[in-house]
Amino acid sequence: MATRHTILTAAAELIIERGYGGASISQITARAGVAAGAVYFHFRSKEGIARALLGLDLLEGVRPRRGPALQEWSDLAVLLARRLDTDPKVRAAPYLAALADSQDGWTSPWPAWRAMVARPLHAAARAGELQTHVQPGAVAELLISAWAGMAGHRTPGTAEQQMRTFLSCCLPGIATPAAAARLEPAPGPASRPGPGPAETAA
Amino acid sequence: MATRHTILTAAAELIIERGYGGASISQITARAGVAAGAVYFHFRSKEGIARALLGLDLLEGVRPRRGPALQEWSDLAVLLARRLDTDPKVRAAPYLAALADSQDGWTSPWPAWRAMVARPLHAAARAGELQTHVQPGAVAELLISAWAGMAGHRTPGTAEQQMRTFLSCCLPGIATPAAAARLEPAPGPASRPGPGPAETAA
Repeated sequence: MATRHTILTAAAELIIERGYGGASISQITARAGVAAGAVYFHFRSKEGIARALLGLDLLEGVRPRRGPALQEWSDLAVLLARRLDTDPKVRAAPYLAALADSQDGWTSPWPAWRAMVARPLHAAARAGELQTHVQPGAVAELLISAWAGMAGHRTPGTAEQQMRTFLSCCLPGIATPAAAARLEPAPGPASRPGPGPAETAA
Repeated sequence: MATRHTILTAAAELIIERGYGGASISQITARAGVAAGAVYFHFRSKEGIARALLGLDLLEGVRPRRGPALQEWSDLAVLLARRLDTDPKVRAAPYLAALADSQDGWTSPWPAWRAMVARPLHAAARAGELQTHVQPGAVAELLISAWAGMAGHRTPGTAEQQMRTFLSCCLPGIATPAAAARLEPAPGPASRPGPGPAETAA
């Protein structure tokens, strides 16, 4: 599993730097410091690596706090952005997702990504935490687009800050005043060592 | 100029479908219906095509309405999103921008893109149209990230709708109540034939 992780990380870094077409198996093995055989054993091909990156759990086991649904959504947004800043495998996923529909055998992760952030928003709507004009599906789609766009920035460490800007701009426009007043700031600065509250496993 | 435009459009479509590495000069000439010589005459190489796409005026001469600065910013956001929906050359730009820093001789368009949407926001701040806690530069950065992420969606025609969601979520969180009350809805649905008010040249 450690080798698998090393290969995926090296491949993700190269895809971010050079694009999918510009990253070769030989570059990936050199960057990962493994034999070519290890890559073929774990993934069969470069396409296999891409499919593995697209299928990753973006949260890798960490989950937002339980609580009011809008709090969960807000924590989830910050957590997803922090993962862009800290894990090249996550940062490579939006690049690959943009190609997924045109590649045989690739599955677009967009529907799963959307569903992940739509679920707490729909729960917030049911709980009366959203203003009545808000369409949870449309806001979920917007969040994932914004998140994916943050991956395109070449300045590392900026996605979480951008997501906090997104939330501070958007929450007054979507939450009821009562729900907005209950919201706690998204947990932990990106630079703080150790897991923040949002990274406590549920 | 017509041939140049045809080549750029064909190249942009192929880059969206296959990625930059997956689009070849021979595919581009076939899609554009031109001789290879025309491509080399206008652009010298595939890299030359990419540089031309990155240097495009995203607005192609159309400009937002003059008016209160926040209105101009809001119109600009809708207009940029509509261009993603209607022009493959614009839609390809965020893909290429993500590669720009790692390619010799490419200039990243991010600084120019950010400056374009930051200018009316800074003007809005000076005019007292923004809430005092709002950082115009951070909101401009967020808008460009969200816009770039909208280009990654495979469903055409959705960027403008997403941008309208972005604005309806964000404006209550950034505008003063007085400035928000003055704002007119972003002009024209994407499907309406002919230029909307935002597309009237200034």
